[in-house]
Amino acid sequence: MDKNLYAHHMATLCRRYDEILEQSGFETLNVFSGAPRMQFLDDNYYPFKVNPHFKALVPITDNPHSWVIYQRGQKPKLLFYRPVDFWHYVPPAPQTFWSDFYDIELLSKPADAQAFLSPENAAFIGESEKLQGWSLGEENPELLINRLHWARAYKTPYEVACLREANRIAINGHRAAEQAFRSGASEFEINQAYLGAAGQGENRMPYGNIVALNEHAAILHYTHLSTERLTEPQLKSFLIDAGADCNGYCSDITRTYAYADNEFAELVTAMDEKQLQLVDGLKPGLPYPELHRQCHLSVGELLAQFDIIKTSAESAVESGLTRPFLPHGLGHFLGLQVHDVGGHQTGPDGGTTPPPAEYPFLRTSRTIEENQVFTIEPGLYFIDSLLGELKDSDLAAEVNWNKVDSFRPYGGVRIEDNIVVHATGNENLSRNP
Amino acid sequence: MDKNLYAHHMATLCRRYDEILEQSGFETLNVFSGAPRMQFLDDNYYPFKVNPHFKALVPITDNPHSWVIYQRGQKPKLLFYRPVDFWHYVPPAPQTFWSDFYDIELLSKPADAQAFLSPENAAFIGESEKLQGWSLGEENPELLINRLHWARAYKTPYEVACLREANRIAINGHRAAEQAFRSGASEFEINQAYLGAAGQGENRMPYGNIVALNEHAAILHYTHLSTERLTEPQLKSFLIDAGADCNGYCSDITRTYAYADNEFAELVTAMDEKQLQLVDGLKPGLPYPELHRQCHLSVGELLAQFDIIKTSAESAVESGLTRPFLPHGLGHFLGLQVHDVGGHQTGPDGGTTPPPAEYPFLRTSRTIEENQVFTIEPGLYFIDSLLGELKDSDLAAEVNWNKVDSFRPYGGVRIEDNIVVHATGNENLSRNP
Ligand SMILES: [Mn+2]
Ligand SMILES: [Mn+2]
Ligand SMILES: [Mn+2]
Ligand SMILES: [Mn+2]
Ligand code: NI
Ligand code: NI
Repeated sequence: MDKNLYAHHMATLCRRYDEILEQSGFETLNVFSGAPRMQFLDDNYYPFKVNPHFKALVPITDNPHSWVIYQRGQKPKLLFYRPVDFWHYVPPAPQTFWSDFYDIELLSKPADAQAFLSPENAAFIGESEKLQGWSLGEENPELLINRLHWARAYKTPYEVACLREANRIAINGHRAAEQAFRSGASEFEINQAYLGAAGQGENRMPYGNIVALNEHAAILHYTHLSTERLTEPQLKSFLIDAGADCNGYCSDITRTYAYADNEFAELVTAMDEKQLQLVDGLKPGLPYPELHRQCHLSVGELLAQFDIIKTSAESAVESGLTRPFLPHGLGHFLGLQVHDVGGHQTGPDGGTTPPPAEYPFLRTSRTIEENQVFTIEPGLYFIDSLLGELKDSDLAAEVNWNKVDSFRPYGGVRIEDNIVVHATGNENLSRNP
Repeated sequence: MDKNLYAHHMATLCRRYDEILEQSGFETLNVFSGAPRMQFLDDNYYPFKVNPHFKALVPITDNPHSWVIYQRGQKPKLLFYRPVDFWHYVPPAPQTFWSDFYDIELLSKPADAQAFLSPENAAFIGESEKLQGWSLGEENPELLINRLHWARAYKTPYEVACLREANRIAINGHRAAEQAFRSGASEFEINQAYLGAAGQGENRMPYGNIVALNEHAAILHYTHLSTERLTEPQLKSFLIDAGADCNGYCSDITRTYAYADNEFAELVTAMDEKQLQLVDGLKPGLPYPELHRQCHLSVGELLAQFDIIKTSAESAVESGLTRPFLPHGLGHFLGLQVHDVGGHQTGPDGGTTPPPAEYPFLRTSRTIEENQVFTIEPGLYFIDSLLGELKDSDLAAEVNWNKVDSFRPYGGVRIEDNIVVHATGNENLSRNP
């Protein structure tokens, strides 16, 4: 990564943190990377997942027992855990594009951090389970955290560069996954192909990969990874939702493929066009829920076009008929966390703006602004439980059930890209690698 | 898995549990599978790791919010969590080799379990974090848990069959890993080859795979997985310590390979012979620490044979000179957990028998008995930090440092097998797939 880009990022970050600390009445932030947690009655640990507030300050995701001490107006201090330990891999002392921007102290024992930490006018951000008896300052003050979360929605050019790279890595994975699907691999094998091409393991993925053949595509968070290989006549459809990591930033991309050239393939192509129109709809000043409504209109159009419903798109949106076919939201903020923070936040100080009552799973109720990064992920599914409810409802007569049944074995379609809203227009990170 | 074998296993298990419950003054055991834990300030979870006391009673490792209710003298009840949920994969109601041995109730919500759970004369085993306010009985009573842990050291034929299968799966992985090493793959790629051939993902592995090229083999728990490919002249050695899962039971196998036909290759072959001798040393009635001492004598013999030390094996063991070359223990119990419970337990009711003072990392201080399963994993390493201390010690003059330096780039060697101590002799599960 470019050092000048990082210098600019740190300058922005320090301005933000200085301002937020001053507003919140703190001089110092003590931010803990976290510590791995032991499994119940075992001597093995859960995989380490870094505190997002730690990786917001320094691009380290794999080193527990470390700290950033941020004092208002001063160069941040990094306490980097580096034990003398012949049992475990010990990372080298950092010397890379970001290391000049921190005063780095090496810790040989976790408890050595205490000598550097002061609770005076300080806030602590992290999990304190393993820090009983430490003096760290006020723990996770809500107002301070709200302000930091609000600010994180506006990405710096360095952050966009990281998200771009996380997309490039994921796209390599998606290409390999499609090839594996076309050659008859099982879900488990397709996922292996994805991870291999991305060069990142399961526990580095920003979320559990969804690798779904046929009707599994109708399970929105299907992460089961069957090892069964399907025969060629069995192979119908493939939905993959998988991302990657770059310096702690996430990508989150979904592709859907038809095995044969048939009506489902046409549905995928038609959804792809709608998705790109929705991407173009991301414009500063538009409330995101408005775009979600447009998405339901698009889905209604597809349902009408493919003869799945007998009414117009407008009437389907009005009556709620599109909802069983698209039960999730159009998208969410993306950044250090795959569902990045602040999507429902009313203002810098907090408050919750819920999504429209008819769309409870929409993760973003904010108005679109410059330098924000969103996913756009419309979908259309054939979900047995929701279709069952629909069949029992007043709207059943508006559905062409033969058509529904012919699509059921394909599960569904979702197309998801990651989009930066620049002043000069949108950048689709997932299509131009 | 064979249903009759399981029937026999359940009969043994029920006898044990009935007896232990009676001794401990309880009528009922409420055993919780566990619930996944959320990441800090995120909506993603850590991978689910089942409570070992749950999988000891029923072979389910991937279904949270489930329970086994074991009442003395009665058929155990399984509360199997199976929500109506279009977001997530919902496992089918169990119908397999073990399902006839439980009264199965399906739970559509986690809280529905409460209707089946009674605290009367009951013990609860599990993590209660997500169960605040539930009436579950006495939480994790120490004496009861000690007795269950003690009993788990004696494996039933079904358990041995599971361990055998876990070895078979791992051996497929080890073969693929060796091929990948010989063809110049990176550590990350070798691990991918392993997981692919085992057909099990990273989070199903019983522990973090150790895949170490060259000097990385000197880091005992090296789990870093570099993506760097080494050139042919750089490739020297490869140590892989990796297992697999079968019905919740673990394998734990280590192999070491030399890239070229040289003195390190001879050391690997010589260690392999010593390892097989130590396997033969597993005999009912022998204290495991005695075998650990024999292991140090074997390592002393290798050090003398390869001209690494200038003294006899006996004198090297006596003086402690072998210890920097083998800092870990000879092995441990193996079963539902990779380092299976009870290795330091003094008797059924508890107590701790520490390992000999000079071998603090030895995980087994018990006397070897029939139907126990152990790993046997001698090693010989060239670890910079320990060799540095040795060089500063009185024993420095007994070391041929030129020889040490010539071996350093290879890291070290470990050979690990999984052994069942049958009445009729030992069964090496890792060598006869
Ligand atoms: Mn996604
Ligand atoms: Mn998404
Ligand atoms: Mn091992
Ligand atoms: Mn072991
Ligand atoms: Ni989910
Ligand atoms: Ni370790």
